Amino acid sequence: MATLEELKLRVRELENELIKCKQKQCAAEQLYRPKIEKMSAEVVDSNPYSRLMALKRMGIVDNYELLLFDYDKVELANMNRLFFQPHQAGLSKVEAAEHTLRNINPDVSFETHNYNITTMDNFNHFMERLSHGGLEDGKPVDLVLSCVDNFEARMAINTACNELGQTWMESGVSENAVSGHIQLINPGETACFACAPPLVVAANIDEKTLKREGVCAASLPTTMGVVAGILVQNVLKYLLKFGRVSYYLGYNAMQDFFPSMSMKPNPQCNDRHCRKQQGVYKAKEAEQPKSETVQEEEEVVHEDNEWGIELVSEEANEETQLTAAGVPDLPEGITVAYTIPAPNKGDCEVVEETEQSLEELMAQMRKL
Amino acid sequence: MATLEELKLRVRELENELIKCKQKQCAAEQLYRPKIEKMSAEVVDSNPYSRLMALKRMGIVDNYELLLFDYDKVELANMNRLFFQPHQAGLSKVEAAEHTLRNINPDVSFETHNYNITTMDNFNHFMERLSHGGLEDGKPVDLVLSCVDNFEARMAINTACNELGQTWMESGVSENAVSGHIQLINPGETACFACAPPLVVAANIDEKTLKREGVCAASLPTTMGVVAGILVQNVLKYLLKFGRVSYYLGYNAMQDFFPSMSMKPNPQCNDRHCRKQQGVYKAKEAEQPKSETVQEEEEVVHEDNEWGIELVSEEANEETQLTAAGVPDLPEGITVAYTIPAPNKGDCEVVEETEQSLEELMAQMRKL
Repeated sequence: MATLEELKLRVRELENELIKCKQKQCAAEQLYRPKIEKMSAEVVDSNPYSRLMALKRMGIVDNYELLLFDYDKVELANMNRLFFQPHQAGLSKVEAAEHTLRNINPDVSFETHNYNITTMDNFNHFMERLSHGGLEDGKPVDLVLSCVDNFEARMAINTACNELGQTWMESGVSENAVSGHIQLINPGETACFACAPPLVVAANIDEKTLKREGVCAASLPTTMGVVAGILVQNVLKYLLKFGRVSYYLGYNAMQDFFPSMSMKPNPQCNDRHCRKQQGVYKAKEAEQPKSETVQEEEEVVHEDNEWGIELVSEEANEETQLTAAGVPDLPEGITVAYTIPAPNKGDCEVVEETEQSLEELMAQMRKL
Repeated sequence: MATLEELKLRVRELENELIKCKQKQCAAEQLYRPKIEKMSAEVVDSNPYSRLMALKRMGIVDNYELLLFDYDKVELANMNRLFFQPHQAGLSKVEAAEHTLRNINPDVSFETHNYNITTMDNFNHFMERLSHGGLEDGKPVDLVLSCVDNFEARMAINTACNELGQTWMESGVSENAVSGHIQLINPGETACFACAPPLVVAANIDEKTLKREGVCAASLPTTMGVVAGILVQNVLKYLLKFGRVSYYLGYNAMQDFFPSMSMKPNPQCNDRHCRKQQGVYKAKEAEQPKSETVQEEEEVVHEDNEWGIELVSEEANEETQLTAAGVPDLPEGITVAYTIPAPNKGDCEVVEETEQSLEELMAQMRKL
């Protein structure tokens, strides 16, 4: 049996060990800084906001809010983008993202939804949050970003934004991992995702070489990084009104080629809300007196980007028509994912006759 | 004084508390996965290398190694790039980077040097590591990446790489945060950093607007993200031999314009090692029989990028001469940081007379 002295010694040992253990834990907990009550305007390196102070001084930024929708979980294979970390494997992506971002910046408000937006109930909830989830209670959000990897999710976002008249930006990386694009969609003003077949960037790959080498099967975080960078840059330019906002900007990684263009909405678009928004936009345009100075200042982002009636290639400044086959005559480097048969068969001999509707073709597309 | 029973109770309490504390610590430690002994070739989401397996199948990648040189410390102001995290504030950047990267990928070898490469001793050590720090003991590294923010550090890298005949890639973001560039320098084959005044991308900013708005003072992680993305993409293309490697690629964020070109070395370059490498390159070129098939296959990366005698704008494919004033006639969107007076005054009336040497001008540049 232990003596009194032995027990006292054991108590001291245990107390010391516990202190050490708690110190380690404490150190781990101190890794996270608390929310900053008042943003400092000082431009010093210890201020995490010094790099944003210029924007605050502009009076443009009050606070930030991020609504995140995603149904996916973090996998170890996602580590190549340096955003998710190994210990987050198994968490939902929105949960992991919120945790990482809140840790970096506790002053931003986050709202996360771990669901698939394409099911009926979730879609309705998604619509509700877009139209009433703004920082100012009950107001719509400023902008929607689409960073999804499938046709269905893009169509869901397109449908919601057309109905709400909500501006959004679409982005994507091709399956071959060596091309990508971003696109700004302002319902009624620019072509929506249903107005024309999806636009993709020609990869100009020597298929033979790449299949042999196996490069195409690799997912390149570099391509995703560039596309994410130009997407968020476009977001900053759009929201903070500087530079020229891109309507469509492609990225061909094999040749470092960046085609750009803009496209008007299709008056025969299958989405009735798109057609309705086109009417709203035209009416608004007609109302605005062109000579008013204040109005001009507000529209400075569109300065070099006036809408033509047709496609406008920004590089060559060439205007092109939709061809009889319904395929837009696109600038070099941009192509369509599939073609739509011409409605008037007599006009166009090259197009094969078909009884398939656009819906049927899109359903085919979905299966690709 | 405590009784035997009281002490026994205290020991049990402490033991329980310690177990709980250690469990928490253990959970925290389990966040980090151990080094994987053998890379799996399975393309499944639980395999952190599934996205790289295509490269392994190519037989190109055996293992990876990263040598990091930086003298700076992590500040809270650096969080906007989503790489460093708040708890790393105060650590050296190389230490923090190694920690983050090793946590994501314990299978990569890291070697970090927390020093300024421009001092004499450090420069010699830097040279030694470039020439003998390869994975295969004593071999040179494959490629050097320059991601620095000052002229002196770039010149140090340039001097070292010229002497060693080491290929490197330079990158930079302008102080206005809305433009940047990447440049591949292969000593003897392409212009080195001392061959001509540094090339910069014209930002085409409405200075009045931006100064009023204060946008220019902001550091944009988006611009850095795009430049870092195109840099690492170029690295992958160069090392893994796919696509067309860019020799100079600029990024103008205000207009989403990406000028590209290539430039031959200056036979009158101030760096004697650059001139020496030019001779080595010419001799090697002369040796190679043009018709040999195997040789051609190895040089596939240069396929669309034959070197002219002068500047070659890749977009317009126009060849231009160095002007009499020593200023290269650059493609649209690229300009020089400063101009060098013409050596032969008689030829060029527009250039002001000056007794300043290139060194003096460069010293002036350093003070900017």
